[in-house]
Amino acid sequence: MKMIMAVVQDKDSALLSDELVEANVRATKLSSSGGFLRSGNTTFMIGVEDERVEEVLNIIKINCESREQYMTTPVNDLAMSSSMQYPIQVHVGGATVFVLPVESFHRF
Amino acid sequence: MKMIMAVVQDKDSALLSDELVEANVRATKLSSSGGFLRSGNTTFMIGVEDERVEEVLNIIKINCESREQYMTTPVNDLAMSSSMQYPIQVHVGGATVFVLPVESFHRF
Amino acid sequence: MKMIMAVVQDKDSALLSDELVEANVRATKLSSSGGFLRSGNTTFMIGVEDERVEEVLNIIKINCESREQYMTTPVNDLAMSSSMQYPIQVHVGGATVFVLPVESFHRF
Ligand code: NI
Ligand code: NI
Ligand code: NI
Repeated sequence: MKMIMAVVQDKDSALLSDELVEANVRATKLSSSGGFLRSGNTTFMIGVEDERVEEVLNIIKINCESREQYMTTPVNDLAMSSSMQYPIQVHVGGATVFVLPVESFHRF
Repeated sequence: MKMIMAVVQDKDSALLSDELVEANVRATKLSSSGGFLRSGNTTFMIGVEDERVEEVLNIIKINCESREQYMTTPVNDLAMSSSMQYPIQVHVGGATVFVLPVESFHRF
Repeated sequence: MKMIMAVVQDKDSALLSDELVEANVRATKLSSSGGFLRSGNTTFMIGVEDERVEEVLNIIKINCESREQYMTTPVNDLAMSSSMQYPIQVHVGGATVFVLPVESFHRF
């Protein structure tokens, strides 16, 4: 048994939850903030058998990996006396993941 | 020293807190949600000496163990044109517990 | 790599965050309550290379260590029929810190 602590961005949290449920992996979410990742984040505490660690890391990677997105924001261009929209590139997502050894696991 | 991470249902949380204080066991509560247990839950982070792990696991088991309860809910029985109450059986409680090794412990 | 879980008082939380950023140490904050320390507290989850554990423990100690403060509170002294202020000594701060072994660490 291992405990996986994964800090992911809030925007990826719902999808990751769904995919873990789909894979029959049990997790609980801890309210977290700041630090490892910009803006709001959620920490998943996941209990998993040793032989499934790679699979779970892969589910996290697929659903939360840092990626680039184009966002279109209105920009006031004073020189042209008009309002224009420029697409800008932003980083979203990303996950910081710790795999911890577990001495014993119990369900009551 | 071990760190015990115990996810328990909110409804068992206050009682568990009291019993841990009574046993002179130090714990802190992390806000958590979803996952291991249905509905609201709380994660207890407990620091405990090796020789007291079994005792603490037992306190968690006694106060949080999954159990069945009868709940009486009003049911509209259309065939009888009347409102009757049926007792239904529900699962409550339950705890998911990880015992983690600790390399060092400090109080400042 | 080690994971440091540090429970500190809310009042020391902002300063500790700043000092960890300054030292280029990555941390995330978990909402926590009660237990190890009186009143509101925050749990820092910090990922750090083995050779920097002592340095991070020292940053926590310096910024969060339990200390005594004098607080001036108004006291109604009935015998003297007047309102006087007495300085009283209170304990503030304090940190409870666990250093946990990490099996593997990943950034996606
Ligand atoms: Ni899917
Ligand atoms: Ni009792
Ligand atoms: Ni400084």
